[in-house]
Amino acid sequence: MAELKSKEAFQKAEAISKKLRRNNLRIEEFIRRRGRLVERALERWVPGTDEFPPLVHKAMNYSLFAGGKRLRPILALAGAEAVGGRAADALPLACSLELIHTYSLIHDDLPSMDNDDLRRGKPTSHRVFGEGPAILAGDALLTEAFRLLARSDLMKNVPPATRLRVIYHIAHAAGSLGMVGGQVMDISCQGKKIDKHLLEYIHSHKTGALIAASVYAGGLVGGASPKEGRALSSYGRKLGLAFQITDDLLDIHGEPRKLGKSVRKDQAQGKATYPALFGVSESRRQAEVLLNGAIAHLRFFDPKADPLREIARFILKRST
Amino acid sequence: MAELKSKEAFQKAEAISKKLRRNNLRIEEFIRRRGRLVERALERWVPGTDEFPPLVHKAMNYSLFAGGKRLRPILALAGAEAVGGRAADALPLACSLELIHTYSLIHDDLPSMDNDDLRRGKPTSHRVFGEGPAILAGDALLTEAFRLLARSDLMKNVPPATRLRVIYHIAHAAGSLGMVGGQVMDISCQGKKIDKHLLEYIHSHKTGALIAASVYAGGLVGGASPKEGRALSSYGRKLGLAFQITDDLLDIHGEPRKLGKSVRKDQAQGKATYPALFGVSESRRQAEVLLNGAIAHLRFFDPKADPLREIARFILKRST
Repeated sequence: MAELKSKEAFQKAEAISKKLRRNNLRIEEFIRRRGRLVERALERWVPGTDEFPPLVHKAMNYSLFAGGKRLRPILALAGAEAVGGRAADALPLACSLELIHTYSLIHDDLPSMDNDDLRRGKPTSHRVFGEGPAILAGDALLTEAFRLLARSDLMKNVPPATRLRVIYHIAHAAGSLGMVGGQVMDISCQGKKIDKHLLEYIHSHKTGALIAASVYAGGLVGGASPKEGRALSSYGRKLGLAFQITDDLLDIHGEPRKLGKSVRKDQAQGKATYPALFGVSESRRQAEVLLNGAIAHLRFFDPKADPLREIARFILKRST
Repeated sequence: MAELKSKEAFQKAEAISKKLRRNNLRIEEFIRRRGRLVERALERWVPGTDEFPPLVHKAMNYSLFAGGKRLRPILALAGAEAVGGRAADALPLACSLELIHTYSLIHDDLPSMDNDDLRRGKPTSHRVFGEGPAILAGDALLTEAFRLLARSDLMKNVPPATRLRVIYHIAHAAGSLGMVGGQVMDISCQGKKIDKHLLEYIHSHKTGALIAASVYAGGLVGGASPKEGRALSSYGRKLGLAFQITDDLLDIHGEPRKLGKSVRKDQAQGKATYPALFGVSESRRQAEVLLNGAIAHLRFFDPKADPLREIARFILKRST
């Protein structure tokens, strides 16, 4: 009897582990395929290095094709697909998010901000092209994002009014009330003691806002109902904050070669982080709570939302 | 008989001079009234200094309300009105153009670009707020421009598809194929000998592109026909280039107190200018040819386009 029970438990554990392995393979395949779509679309739609003037287009393309994970674009596609939309319709949105993310990295790395020499394993933009051209390449990438979102030859299946809503939400998430606001607080709090509310503000704005907007705007393009939109938005906000917490954890434990950027810089720069404020294990716990909460927001979605669920699990694994 | 002829000529000259004075008064009144509309709209729509985080919003508002002439917004309103549209419908567009123009000034003034300490009679943004916050304030102003253009509570009389076209053209004019492209060439050609083609490229992109887009996008909002759109676009391109030429001339002959910025900097920085390449009087002649050409593009417009005609004359007077 005990043996039978044990056998049953073993089989159950095996089944779960098999399902996990399968899901894992499936999400890795999903990320790979969607990532490839994004890569090709970026190459097709963003002005190439042969455009005039060469300097700014070389700088734009250098950072854009430096091996980013394309998390935000993939989340946008997954958001559109979760509500029954087509990935193809969300591709310009996906690319615009990567353009905005890339601009923010170039500007964050500048000497007057985080002063980073290494990004994704390569010298940062201002180290290669000079500070002026790096600032301008960032400006151009940000502008290009909105040009792409408004192109008349793309997104023909999406109603113009919906496209305006997408532009509004992306701009809101990227601007002074979103990502830029978070970055401003981040650089002005360096070396200062801050409480957990301010830290949460910085993380949820600097990183969280654009990640949340990616999922939500993807949903809009996919034709989300208001209820679905709210759920995607809640999922995105929790995922975005959890992502930054795991990023903090990687800054402590990660290897520079694997991450392609300098590590243990947060402490050196006197930056407030979750591990610094709460310790490593409590930070991990908070990330886990957030990611499980994110998944819970998707409870009334069908299996088309599985990639979003798996991406949350994927992010959790990063930090452990 | 000779006396009679002389009297006739005198009366004719008087009539012309009276008409000129009247037009002058009228255009000044137009600029003042439209400027006031823009001022109030900027105050109403752009996040104020009480928004969080204070630093970035203070920096944004500092540069936005530093006494700019609001040329681009006024051109957008005049463009809309020239084709029978309402100024009110074009106000969000007008404000977005001033946001983009202001961001470009903040970034242009940075130490890694033109390294200017004075702008519109006040210390430049990075001198007041530091370099990092100044860069971020510029980023936020640019982003805010697109948020404003996409707001669902504004521009309700303008079809969403038209609004997308407006966003596209503004982004195109502001990005790497427009204004940013011009600025990149400007900073990379400092101290180098360049020919007139490259100089025309720099001027028509750095300054001309956004000015041309202002008029054209104003026309779109006002419901311009394709023929009207093409005429406004041609007018705008000539006006934009002429404006930069007169700016070069003012850098030589202007008084810093009146201009509110440093003068004779172009030469000190080894910048190519029209006066440096062609001499003062030939530059004036070229500006005049361009402005007369700009006005000629409006020949089939009715008196509603008079403000556009008068603005061209107004710019010509700046340089003489």
